[in-house]
Parts: sequence; structure tokens; C-alpha cells
Amino acid sequence: MSEDQSFHMTAEQFRRHGKEVVDWIADYYEGIESLPVLSQARPGDIRQALPPGPPQHGEAFESLLKDIDRVILPGVTHWQSPNFYAYFPANASGPAILGDLLSSALGVQGMIWATSPACTELETQVLDWLVTMLGLPAKFLSSSTGGGVIQDTASSAALCAMLAARERATGYTTNFRGNDGKLVAYTSTQAHSSLEKAAMIAGIGLNNLRLLEVDNDFAINPDALRRQVRADLEAGLIPFFVCGTVGTTSSNAMDPLPAIAEICREYNLWFHVDAAMSGTAALCPEFRHYQQGVEHADSYCFNPHKWMFTNFDCDCFYVADRKALIKTLSILPEYLKNQATESGAVFDYRDWQVPLGRRFRSLKLWFVIRHYGVEGLQYHVRQHVEIAQAFAGWVRQDDRFEIVAPVPLNLVCFRFRGSEEQNQTLMDRLNQSGDLYLTHTRLRDQFVLRFCVGQTNTTRKHVEQAWQRIQEEAASL
Amino acid sequence: MSEDQSFHMTAEQFRRHGKEVVDWIADYYEGIESLPVLSQARPGDIRQALPPGPPQHGEAFESLLKDIDRVILPGVTHWQSPNFYAYFPANASGPAILGDLLSSALGVQGMIWATSPACTELETQVLDWLVTMLGLPAKFLSSSTGGGVIQDTASSAALCAMLAARERATGYTTNFRGNDGKLVAYTSTQAHSSLEKAAMIAGIGLNNLRLLEVDNDFAINPDALRRQVRADLEAGLIPFFVCGTVGTTSSNAMDPLPAIAEICREYNLWFHVDAAMSGTAALCPEFRHYQQGVEHADSYCFNPHKWMFTNFDCDCFYVADRKALIKTLSILPEYLKNQATESGAVFDYRDWQVPLGRRFRSLKLWFVIRHYGVEGLQYHVRQHVEIAQAFAGWVRQDDRFEIVAPVPLNLVCFRFRGSEEQNQTLMDRLNQSGDLYLTHTRLRDQFVLRFCVGQTNTTRKHVEQAWQRIQEEAASL
Repeated sequence: MSEDQSFHMTAEQFRRHGKEVVDWIADYYEGIESLPVLSQARPGDIRQALPPGPPQHGEAFESLLKDIDRVILPGVTHWQSPNFYAYFPANASGPAILGDLLSSALGVQGMIWATSPACTELETQVLDWLVTMLGLPAKFLSSSTGGGVIQDTASSAALCAMLAARERATGYTTNFRGNDGKLVAYTSTQAHSSLEKAAMIAGIGLNNLRLLEVDNDFAINPDALRRQVRADLEAGLIPFFVCGTVGTTSSNAMDPLPAIAEICREYNLWFHVDAAMSGTAALCPEFRHYQQGVEHADSYCFNPHKWMFTNFDCDCFYVADRKALIKTLSILPEYLKNQATESGAVFDYRDWQVPLGRRFRSLKLWFVIRHYGVEGLQYHVRQHVEIAQAFAGWVRQDDRFEIVAPVPLNLVCFRFRGSEEQNQTLMDRLNQSGDLYLTHTRLRDQFVLRFCVGQTNTTRKHVEQAWQRIQEEAASL
Repeated sequence: MSEDQSFHMTAEQFRRHGKEVVDWIADYYEGIESLPVLSQARPGDIRQALPPGPPQHGEAFESLLKDIDRVILPGVTHWQSPNFYAYFPANASGPAILGDLLSSALGVQGMIWATSPACTELETQVLDWLVTMLGLPAKFLSSSTGGGVIQDTASSAALCAMLAARERATGYTTNFRGNDGKLVAYTSTQAHSSLEKAAMIAGIGLNNLRLLEVDNDFAINPDALRRQVRADLEAGLIPFFVCGTVGTTSSNAMDPLPAIAEICREYNLWFHVDAAMSGTAALCPEFRHYQQGVEHADSYCFNPHKWMFTNFDCDCFYVADRKALIKTLSILPEYLKNQATESGAVFDYRDWQVPLGRRFRSLKLWFVIRHYGVEGLQYHVRQHVEIAQAFAGWVRQDDRFEIVAPVPLNLVCFRFRGSEEQNQTLMDRLNQSGDLYLTHTRLRDQFVLRFCVGQTNTTRKHVEQAWQRIQEEAASL
């Protein structure tokens, strides 16, 4: 950005355009409720608004920013709208956005400690803070045998956990992995799809991932798990990995971690706990009982980029035995050798993840924790849970609807007492109205509406309006 | 960011603090040359400057920004300094930083088309533009059988390529992968370490990754490749994958792609081409001969986050047959089902990568291409190559030094004609001085210095100063 270089944006231009972008963002958030939450674009609309080829000559920044409004916004589903109740949230916040901006600007690589010590050490420190903040076991602390690392997603965390488990089970050989197709992993039909993807990638194969049927609350039945493990052992197979979930994606079901942990101990299985969204609830001591049993986990993850006001990507992944993870993923080419690594005094996070390169992602997390403080984070999580519980109460009081799964926290699964088509129509009409956005799942072979309260700026007022709109549309069915 | 919510940063505060951050960044870039390029921090320094636990109460934004200067900067190696010549560059630019800022603020998820159509369609469009800009084969266009997708890194691209190759070789079975340890992959000793990591993750095993010895220019010897493939076939093994490199990390060696492609065709092997840094050079027609043969590749990647002024993470990954990739990585849970996906009219990039979630990364790439235009990008790439070639000339003219590998583009591998210790000392003294930062590799069992010109703001003046400093330190050896 120095002035004497052709084509580059100068420092002076960066100041001007940067401030224009900051104002654009503030305006966007101030006006976001006037935008249809779900994009109304049809396939191809956005591409048709773009030129077929790249510009030969550079364009003014003003025209770039104008095209955000003209071309991009009509194709954006507003995940940061307070009226967004779909999927799981991916909530951002001011301090996160600005921390991430600094990360983009510093542009450091954190693949090893030596390439930017602050990138590694801040990450270690903040992930240690979170162990305390969430009441996680001390073995996850960097001062213990374990440690935490930021992954992009819970999918990658699940993959790393399964890989480390595979290596622990097969003795860290340099031969091909999979052990003749004998390794078997376990989770429930309600676990996140990333477990299936991990089993495919790691060479375990979908046939060797047991998706256990769940109980009436959509949680793993430990007896079923034990029976399946025994049956597989009797068949000469090698059980090696179990994933339990704190808050499944479909219905927010809570797997019975203590009972699963006992089976894992008995049969020496790697126990991974996926708390992608709901892990954040443990900021509040009154919700920690849902993660009881995590003290026996070999690995654990939750996503501040879902419900902790930290923009994507930021998944916090913890292991109890960091050596198992590092032995699984470590590769040290000559051009990365350095004295700090050889001294053994530092973490090289490259060895804790799939990619080599890594961004300074702890900055945004640090900014969020410091801006809100523990009490601010707790306040907003409690608000979201309280509002979701209120919503569940309204649904229960309306005979036209029913709640179809337990509501432990901030996700309400409900349905209109009518046909599948009526529920689909109800959802489509609400989403097409642009007033709110919610999505569906399937539970007990029924089409079910999901209403998840977790966007940063969602307040009771928004949820009251949403419920009113749902009632209106239901009345017209 | 609405005003009525406790603890959140208000829109007004965001405007103020956002502009402070923008000014901080502009100041940082204006003063970056006064900072020691390589962080002088010792292990633990940064953590000691941080409180042991999280704050209970939120802090003022001013104190966060102050701590960037006080705590973080001393632990930062300045990858954006024009005096950074280490590793490969990870160059950022004004338009990239601001495009990324918009991505953080919009906070959309691009896992499927329906979750934000613009996120998918802009990515497809810009990656199509790059096919033309780089002279890549038309089969990589989305309008053909292939297509491009943004991955985080070339490591992940290599993993996805190897997985798709594994599946093509084993018939997309739901059984465990690895085919009894018979699958064999090939690359050179000079290929990126991510190939080894991919072979480990994909269950191929390091023992089944052949790291071929290279020729005098550190490039793959096609005859050696053919001999090894034949030997493996005779041993009853199943060759399935070859990775060739356009510009190896160690010395920027150029593998002979046409000859490798011929072998891949003959034996039906998946041909992946890794052009992580050097791919950007193909913006200039005069450098495209290095990638000749890429028209036969099954997959290809290059990283705009290295040398194309786009901040990390941004790896562009292309496949010739997108169905092979999608069949390998597709999982469709109920809660992600939607009409657009079922219509088949859209790309769901979730099925093109390991993670599920994905950020709106094409925004920064779009901003870079539009800000610079093709001519601006070409100008700076040519400048970097010209300066690196000049540097190589100065080294050649100084009897105390020698060039130890071909210099096709912007990386110069050289050494002081002396002992390994002297070269190590030379490098350490230069790096500890803070005036510049360069790293080493090992070629023909010699410790070799690497000097890579690719940071956005590096000009001839900086490289002249660097050479002067190198000469000074050499004189004192």
C-alpha cells in the first residue's frame, strides 16, 4: 500500500475505502431487518449479473462496493438477520469482525510457532481460557497432556479425531490404514453428517460406521451401543471410535456421555464429543449438566462460530493426549525445520490439523471474549435459551401445533398438526415472505420444522413476531 | 449491533472502532519497514504478556487495539513486509483485505447453493474467469465437465484430489478404502509435504507413496516414474495417482508435465498438478510454458493467497470431472435437503471439499481481480520475476556465492561458498537483524538459502538493500 507502486491501493486510498466499507457494514446491520432473510434468487441469477470475463483494466473501488448492493445482496441469505432461525446459527459480532479484519491485514501464517509466535501462543492461551469458561476437564489444558487448537469446522475436528483414533488403534504404522477393513466406528443416526464424511475420507468406509438407532429422545441408547460393539468383536472386527453429541443438528438431542464413556473405557475406544453448537451453552453453569461425561472424552469440539458471536471459521478442538494427534498428522520437511521446533518448547499447530497453512483466527475469538467478558457471553446465551423456551411454550399452548422433541436449549422442533404437505407449505410460505427463515428436518419419519434461536441480535421481540407470522400462515393453510 | 441490546457493540461503536482499525492497518503498512521482519520473541513471551484467565467483565475496545501493539506485534513475523523473502509469500493487498472484511460481516454460509446463492455463483464465475486468465484447459470450466472451487490450502486440494483418485480406482465402494494396501501414489522427493499427509489421511500409507528421485534440476525423471509404475504393477500393486509440481516449494523446480501426463494416460492414473505459488505466473503468457501439459491433468491447484495479492485462505482447485469429486465427498442429510439441490441446476460446494461450512471467500478474489485488472496483476508478477532474476544475476557475479538450482521465476536458491555452518550463521544473522527474512532448504545434501520475491510491496529497492545486507554479513563471516 505504499504510494510509489503502480496498481496497488495506496495507504490513503485504503483509509478512505476501508472507512466506506465500515460504514457500509454498519448500514447493512442497521437495515438488515428490511431485507428478505432468505434470498429470492433463482439458479443462475447472480452469474447472469456478472460479466463473462475478467476486466483487463482495474476498476474504481466505488464500483466494487456498488456491486455488493447491486449483484451480491440479492443473492445473500442474511445469516446475520435477527430473523434467521434456520439450520444452526453462524453468528458474527462487531468485535469478531474487527478482530478478523486485523487477521486479514497482518496476513501471518501460523503453521509453525516460528512463522509467527503470537499466532500460536494467543491461540493456546485463549483455548486454555475456554477450558475454564466452559467447565471442560483440565486434561484439555495445554499445561496438561492435551491441548486445544482452532479448526475450520467441526467436520475437520471429527476427521482429525477419527484419524488419531485410527492411528492409536493401528500402531502408527506407515503402511496403509484401515486394517483390512476391520476398524469399526460408532455414532448415532442423529450424529452430524461429517462423521460419515470422515469415515469415507479416513478409509474406514461407510459400511464400517455404525449409525445406531436412537431412543425416544433421539439420543444414543448405550445398551444398543454395547450390543453392537460386542457383536462386532465377535465377528472379528476392531471397534475403535465412538462419537457422542451434545446437541444434535437435527433436534438438539443430548447423548448420554457418561454411559458411552464407560463403554469406551471398557473396550478401549476413542471417545469424541461433538458439541458444535450447544457447547457454547456451557458458558452458563446451569447448562453444564448436558456435557457431563466429557471429562472422559479423548477429544471434544465446539464452534464459537455458531453461537458464540465469532464469525466463521472457528471450531475449538481439544484432545486429552496431544501426542496421539501430533503423531498422526506430523510431517516435517526441511524448509520448515527451525530451532524452536527442535527445542520441543513450542506447539506447531500444523501438526494438529489437515492443512499446512493457517490464519490468525484466535484474534477474533480473543476480541469477542474481551469485548463481552464472561458475563456478557453468559447474558446473551441465557437470553437465547429463555426466548427459545418461551417460543416452545407458545407452540405447546396452540392446539394446531405440537412439539416433537425435547427442547433442552435454543432449538425448538415442532410441527403443524396436519399433513407433510401442509408443513412444507407453511415453511415455504414463511421463507418466501422474507420475514423469517427456518428450515426442516425429519424425525420419526415426519417432516418437522426447526426453529433455532442463536443469531447475535435476535431478541424476544423478533421471536414474538416470528410466532405471529407462523400463526398467521397456519391459519391460512 | 442494534442499540437496544446489552453487551453488543452498537452500530455507532462499530463505525468508530472500525475506522480506528482501518487507520491502524494503514499505519501498520506505512511503518512496516521499521519493524524487524522476523519476530524476536522467545517461546512463552507472548503468553506471559497475557492474563491467565478470561475477563469477567467486558473491556473497552481501545484496550483491545492497544494490546495488538503491546502484546501481539512483538510476536508477529511480518509476512506483509516488503523485506519478507522466506518460504513462499502469503501476500495480501488492500482490495483483498476489504473484500474479506465484507465476507466477515455478511457472515453467510456457502455450504450449499441454497444457503446463499451469491456465495456459490460468484465463486464459480471467478474461478471460470481464472481459467481464461491463466490459460488453463477449457475442461476446468463449469460449463464443461469440470469446475473450480476455493479450498483453504493446496494441502486440502491435494487431499481431495487423492481421495477422488482413490475412489475412481476402487469403484466408489462404501467399504473401507485402501484396497488391501495395494494402491500406490507417486510424486517426487521435492513435492510438497502435503502429499505425504494426504497419503496418511486417505489411508494409502506412507509406504505406498513413492517419492521419486529427481534429476539435476530437481524435477521428476519420467523414465524413473515409468520404471516404478511398471515395477509396482509387476508386484501386484495398483498405481492410481501421480502429483506433478509447477514450482516446487524447495527450489521452484518444474516437473515435466507432458511426459508425466503420457504415463498417466497409459496406465490410467489420476494426474494432479500442484502449482501452489507458481501458478500465478501463468497470468503472463510468457510464463505459461511452465505449465504446459496441464491440459492433461485430472486436477490442478494454485494459491492466489501466495502470489496473487489475495489474503489467506484462498486455494483454487480445479477438476476435469466434477462428478468424480462429488461422488467422493457427497453426503446429504435431511436438514440440508432443498429444491435447488434436487433440481440438479446448482453446485453445492460442500460436496467439493472436506468441511461442511464455508466462508464467502470469492469476494476477496473478485475484489483483487477487479481492482488490479488483468494488466495490474501481470505488471506486478513481471516485476517480481524481473527483480528476482536481477538478484540471481548479482549472486552469480559475486564469487563468494553460487546459484544452486535453476531460477525459472521468483525464487533464488543460493549459497555462500563455504561451510554449512557459515551459511547457517549468515542466515541467522540476517534474520536476527530484522532487516529481512529468508529461510533455507536442503538440496543435494547442502544447506541452501532461499530468496523468494513475492510480497505485494517488494520493489527493486528492497531487494537491492537485501543483497547489500547479505554481502555485508558474508564479508564478516
